[in-house]
Amino acid sequence: MKLVSFDVWNTLLDIGVMLSFLSKGLGEVTGIEEEETAGGVSLARERIKGMRSKGTGNPERALEESQELLAELLGINVELVKRATARAVLRVGDEIVLPGAKEALEGVKRKDLKVTVTGNVMFWPGSYTRLLLERFGLMDHIDKTFFADEVKAFKPMREMFEKPLKAFNVRPEEAIHIGDTYAEDFEGALKAGLWAVWINPKAEGVRRIHERGFEVPSVGGILEVLEEIEKS
Amino acid sequence: MKLVSFDVWNTLLDIGVMLSFLSKGLGEVTGIEEEETAGGVSLARERIKGMRSKGTGNPERALEESQELLAELLGINVELVKRATARAVLRVGDEIVLPGAKEALEGVKRKDLKVTVTGNVMFWPGSYTRLLLERFGLMDHIDKTFFADEVKAFKPMREMFEKPLKAFNVRPEEAIHIGDTYAEDFEGALKAGLWAVWINPKAEGVRRIHERGFEVPSVGGILEVLEEIEKS
Repeated sequence: MKLVSFDVWNTLLDIGVMLSFLSKGLGEVTGIEEEETAGGVSLARERIKGMRSKGTGNPERALEESQELLAELLGINVELVKRATARAVLRVGDEIVLPGAKEALEGVKRKDLKVTVTGNVMFWPGSYTRLLLERFGLMDHIDKTFFADEVKAFKPMREMFEKPLKAFNVRPEEAIHIGDTYAEDFEGALKAGLWAVWINPKAEGVRRIHERGFEVPSVGGILEVLEEIEKS
Repeated sequence: MKLVSFDVWNTLLDIGVMLSFLSKGLGEVTGIEEEETAGGVSLARERIKGMRSKGTGNPERALEESQELLAELLGINVELVKRATARAVLRVGDEIVLPGAKEALEGVKRKDLKVTVTGNVMFWPGSYTRLLLERFGLMDHIDKTFFADEVKAFKPMREMFEKPLKAFNVRPEEAIHIGDTYAEDFEGALKAGLWAVWINPKAEGVRRIHERGFEVPSVGGILEVLEEIEKS
């Protein structure tokens, strides 16, 4: 193994925390009740996840489409969505960093492996997620970041996984990707030829579920998976 | 007049402050002396400004090109440029807001005009500039923002000015753009058919220098210009 690729949201950072600050920010800039903005955020999220799993949606405009859909559901101008994401990024605290995330990154770096982030985007650009990774010290253990709005592709598309492989000059079987979304992260990585780790909070421990695939209960499981692969 | 368009850097926000934090951030993440990173930033900036005024450079990749050029000049990975811009955005204080900027925006809104930001990008994405405008309270007086990396065009290109006109459903002669760079802001806006205001710190006062153009010593001059246009 040469490269470990991490999904961001619900792998390293808590999406629930971010979406709650986003809903609050939307309430402030629009005057709409926070309960309603939170409902809009949930509904938009569900629809976009559905679109992406069906392979519809334009990868060139994946971010803009998500911002426009949310704006439309709330009946507001898209600029207010952008403002609310800026407020959320400025205000979240380090409760957004998931338990074990920093230790997982440090553990991988101690094994002298390259670390990349391979993340989808929704509502806010990858640059804001990069800012959060920097702000809470995670970037100190990450070599490169690839976000869907910059790559112009999104997981589970093969191109999204091929970009980091190419950047590190690594073959698919020398790389492993870990993330919480089964279709985007686990199946996507396997289809692109990488090893894959699915974070399933209901899993009781680390378990092999595919020739090149594992399930783990949380991000820290990556270290146990790497040891198991080394042994075999 | 229906729409006032503001350039950002050296019109509303102080580019010198931002570049100094960027150079500091580059020093931290690379270990290179800050004097050297600052030199690289200056040189990259000069080259890119030259390229853009000659109309070379790819508007689809204007941001990436600037990041890559800076990385190349410093002999570092482009990810470190992105990290340094994130650090700069997180650390600058409100000394970055130029004197009179907030008052100019408030004055324009009091006249019941629409306000847009029309900004070029270099080294960091428009989303980071939007974050700074939000953080320091300027977005409260701005209706929409258009940044070159999102529009896929840059000033002085006509497309860059046409985008806000279209968004506000306004004719060119009903809009005025103010900025500090003669070729990008003043000439660009005039060529696109808008009124134009050039911020020339050496100007002694507000002065008409073209059928549809003025020079002013600082951003506050926009209010005097608007009054003059109303009178005539």
